[in-house]
Amino acid sequence: MPNTLLNSRDIQFQLYEVLNSASLTERSRFTEHSRETFNAAIDTAAQIAEDLFANHNAKLDNHEPQFDGKKVSIIPEVKTAFDALATAGFIAGRQDYELDGMQLPEVIMAVCMGYFTSANASTSGYSFLTAAAANLIRIFASDTLKDQFLSPLLKGRFSGTMALTEPHAGSSLADIRTTAKPTTEGHYLIKGDKMFISGGDHELTDNIVHLVLAKIEGAPLGVKGISLFLVPKYTLDSNGEPNQRNDVTLTGLIHKMGYRGTTSTALAFGDNGACVGYLIGEAHQGLRYMFQMMNEARVGVAMGATMIGYRGYLYSLHYARERLQGRKATDGPEASQIPIVEHADVRRMLLAQKSYVEGGLSLCLLGASLLDDINTLEHSTDVKDTQILLDLLTPVIKSWCSEFGPKANDLAIQILGGSGYTREYPVEQYWRDNRLNPIHEGTNGIQSLDLLGRKVWQHNSLGLQLLGKRIQSDIVRAQSSENSRCSVWAQTLGQALLSVQKITMQLGADLAANKVESTLANAACYMNIVGKVTVAWLWLRQALAAEAGLTKLKLNSTTNTEDTHFYNGKLQAAQYFFKWELSSIHQDLALLENRDETCLAMQNEWF
Amino acid sequence: MPNTLLNSRDIQFQLYEVLNSASLTERSRFTEHSRETFNAAIDTAAQIAEDLFANHNAKLDNHEPQFDGKKVSIIPEVKTAFDALATAGFIAGRQDYELDGMQLPEVIMAVCMGYFTSANASTSGYSFLTAAAANLIRIFASDTLKDQFLSPLLKGRFSGTMALTEPHAGSSLADIRTTAKPTTEGHYLIKGDKMFISGGDHELTDNIVHLVLAKIEGAPLGVKGISLFLVPKYTLDSNGEPNQRNDVTLTGLIHKMGYRGTTSTALAFGDNGACVGYLIGEAHQGLRYMFQMMNEARVGVAMGATMIGYRGYLYSLHYARERLQGRKATDGPEASQIPIVEHADVRRMLLAQKSYVEGGLSLCLLGASLLDDINTLEHSTDVKDTQILLDLLTPVIKSWCSEFGPKANDLAIQILGGSGYTREYPVEQYWRDNRLNPIHEGTNGIQSLDLLGRKVWQHNSLGLQLLGKRIQSDIVRAQSSENSRCSVWAQTLGQALLSVQKITMQLGADLAANKVESTLANAACYMNIVGKVTVAWLWLRQALAAEAGLTKLKLNSTTNTEDTHFYNGKLQAAQYFFKWELSSIHQDLALLENRDETCLAMQNEWF
Repeated sequence: MPNTLLNSRDIQFQLYEVLNSASLTERSRFTEHSRETFNAAIDTAAQIAEDLFANHNAKLDNHEPQFDGKKVSIIPEVKTAFDALATAGFIAGRQDYELDGMQLPEVIMAVCMGYFTSANASTSGYSFLTAAAANLIRIFASDTLKDQFLSPLLKGRFSGTMALTEPHAGSSLADIRTTAKPTTEGHYLIKGDKMFISGGDHELTDNIVHLVLAKIEGAPLGVKGISLFLVPKYTLDSNGEPNQRNDVTLTGLIHKMGYRGTTSTALAFGDNGACVGYLIGEAHQGLRYMFQMMNEARVGVAMGATMIGYRGYLYSLHYARERLQGRKATDGPEASQIPIVEHADVRRMLLAQKSYVEGGLSLCLLGASLLDDINTLEHSTDVKDTQILLDLLTPVIKSWCSEFGPKANDLAIQILGGSGYTREYPVEQYWRDNRLNPIHEGTNGIQSLDLLGRKVWQHNSLGLQLLGKRIQSDIVRAQSSENSRCSVWAQTLGQALLSVQKITMQLGADLAANKVESTLANAACYMNIVGKVTVAWLWLRQALAAEAGLTKLKLNSTTNTEDTHFYNGKLQAAQYFFKWELSSIHQDLALLENRDETCLAMQNEWF
Repeated sequence: MPNTLLNSRDIQFQLYEVLNSASLTERSRFTEHSRETFNAAIDTAAQIAEDLFANHNAKLDNHEPQFDGKKVSIIPEVKTAFDALATAGFIAGRQDYELDGMQLPEVIMAVCMGYFTSANASTSGYSFLTAAAANLIRIFASDTLKDQFLSPLLKGRFSGTMALTEPHAGSSLADIRTTAKPTTEGHYLIKGDKMFISGGDHELTDNIVHLVLAKIEGAPLGVKGISLFLVPKYTLDSNGEPNQRNDVTLTGLIHKMGYRGTTSTALAFGDNGACVGYLIGEAHQGLRYMFQMMNEARVGVAMGATMIGYRGYLYSLHYARERLQGRKATDGPEASQIPIVEHADVRRMLLAQKSYVEGGLSLCLLGASLLDDINTLEHSTDVKDTQILLDLLTPVIKSWCSEFGPKANDLAIQILGGSGYTREYPVEQYWRDNRLNPIHEGTNGIQSLDLLGRKVWQHNSLGLQLLGKRIQSDIVRAQSSENSRCSVWAQTLGQALLSVQKITMQLGADLAANKVESTLANAACYMNIVGKVTVAWLWLRQALAAEAGLTKLKLNSTTNTEDTHFYNGKLQAAQYFFKWELSSIHQDLALLENRDETCLAMQNEWF
């Protein structure tokens, strides 16, 4: 498998040398698995991604879905790819065997799905939404609904959407106006307009299952009055087959600058007063259920942003190795031109990308492995603690990866220079595609507020303590390391961690003193700090694993130069992250320590 | 004039309150001008920009120029706009009256042309290239060439290009292979392939004048063997009218992701051995001449990047004032939604944009005013010093503005959220258009090398001393200011300036010790520092002018609230820049002080 989508050596390293994912097979859920079956799943995904997803990534960007007033048409390659992914079992990949799933761990599924996104983010979108919708239905829906909808979703016969946003209510879900009216037949009648609904209409599947947020008449104001409904495009007949067209109308496609192959739709529910919706779970608990899907989607967005960044990194690396341009500063014009990878400033841009995408991958896989722990650890305290840690990290994962994945794509363009700016090369599409990620599933501004306004303080800040404990344990490990670089970085990380803890306590005191507005005003600074510290920690972990790898090679007197190069690269990227990236937290710390009110004090009229 | 393209109050402020451009009328070249004639020119440009450029900015992006194998077709609005700009005299705006110019100062021309770029960067491109080519011909070409080509260029009957890049030689001009063979008739025969030639073919004008870099047979290796040729699309008859098609072939259009309306072309010169070119100036001096045009183009790129950023800022500000979403953190769900400009994090993104684009504008206008000084100061030492200062600042201006203009556009998208990501709103186009600017006319990596490898050391570092002197004099002014904020910022700036001077000396000592490669490896850090310090200085100047404005209002007991708001906004943006932006230099300083070798030591095989 050529390393154009992801570096397979890095995948093996992250899974088995950093995360110890092989040990998952010792847990009862995964006893039938082995490192070999994990890798077989990954290889299958990589192969399908390479053959059926990467092949039409550019074509789909050039031929975006069209709506002729009746149907949405999409180039046929999308259905071929979607069906292949479904047939290979990846929509149900994480589900129980009894649901025809593969009972694969989340970390392995994350890598598998990562290959698809790297190859073609737009086409992958449909299966991501479907898998997430199925999971929500499995957890929260009634047996009747599960009987009808779960299996076709997991098989990819039906697909799923999440319908939250309305024209006047994007970030502010409290303000949705879509209503649900109970009927005597058990279902509800849904009425309202939704927009930016990804995958909201198409002909890829026999049916589309919309998960719709709406308010039942007389519900409490705000988010506490939101319920969740399952609204199919076609209602089912008694055999469970799609039958009658439900009253859901596509009012138009929205034209995005990237991610063009995933339809973004404006949908009208109940224009004719006949939109059938089924309540999921209890009334008014909709936002809580939806957050199951949303949190999954947030980590998915992070992974997507990282994957698109990763692919751009690999492309620009390849280009930098081939493209001859210029000479060393000390060479005269008679010398031959050198590949641009030899220029220090190009190496800076490659190292930055490497540190962002491999750091981002570590972060996403950490998130996935926490989910595995939640699903499979035996002691309930461990499960509860891990859930709290994942809750804390979710906005950080979403925010950090969707900031730095696009940054990587920006650097890839810069390395290609004029060529990178043309549509004859792929990196500009990656950059356009990735720009969506800091916006959807909660803007990064919303993530910062979620982190500093809510997550940090839940359960008496246990999440942050648990994170600190894990970081501290790796610091201790690194300090006893023979690699002097690791122990220096550990020291730097220790100081940074202390700073996070100190500033968190100060901000907590401010919130306790009711200084809510001023404290949350600079939430973005707090997010930067926590994100950078977390990723620095994961780079330290990678460095320790690389060091261990090098030691092993030495002990075995193996002269596996490829592995030696790989580990040296990891150590150098860790060094880059500690010296060039982590240091930026001091600026944010200073702003928080001084309770800077520059932004808060700015007045509308002054602009 | 609505403030959708630029804030006219800011233009007046920057020209007459910060730069004192009104005093230019005391110089002999501008005696026939007054603040009124300056503003009349600006108003004319703004009106044409609004009426004839802004109207087709999106349309041109959607309908990019097409090549049918014979001719390039462009939507007709482009020619209408180009002709209107030319007819109003703006291509010749800066030229002498005797050349039918308006003899306008560069600062005024920069603002006029700024309006066109803000309205439509692609359409403006043709006139920028034409004005710059005309200027080069005026300065360096023979009288014969001037007689033939200068006037039609200045009138916009002919247009101009700069043809430097070749497929294998972009950043490395030393490696161009295009040749020039002398003939007995006085002209040369040009042979070679050029690419990424903006405006390289179209039907907007009767003729296109290519300024082509080529090597005369037997020329020295490298940049010292480059000559400059004037190569017209059509050679002229004895009446100076375009006549015979020259042997210049359009081999294809290059498809960019933005800036789509300015054709980017691959051109073949002399495929049939009959490409007539005329030597400009002396043989082998071509790069020096071309740098006249290139330096002008670099400041032009900076201004363009700033203008596109400026327009996105104004759009997102307008949106943030209109869009209702969410509530104050302390409000319950029963409260009405508020405009998003009231959220501190949105204000952060607006303030950042304001600080980038108004700071960038200050920087570009400083560059233009230095050119005015070079053109009109009486004492030759002053002229020489000013030229040295401008030489130093040119890479800084190009680099800083083309980094932060696009950053502003990125924030504009984020403020619009999902809408910003759609092609139904204009900000995504601004972002795509602006991404070209860190690449063309010398990538920002090249600018950093130019600054640290060359410009800083010329004339015994006089440029940096002159810059330091100017900064110091404003620091002194600010320290005696009654506004305690200004005096604090002055102190911060003074320390930053000292740091620049100190690190420069250290790096100079390293270069003197022949540590060329390691010193230049982190040139990007040095560029960041110099750029941030320079723009911080310009924000201090703006703050001082704002303070003076407020004092004046007070003395006059004028309750001009609009002006009061405007000045307060300037002070707050200055505060933002000092507290949130300038502080990032410490990270770069630390890397330079420690002579960090992370990027230099990275090996190709380790990636």
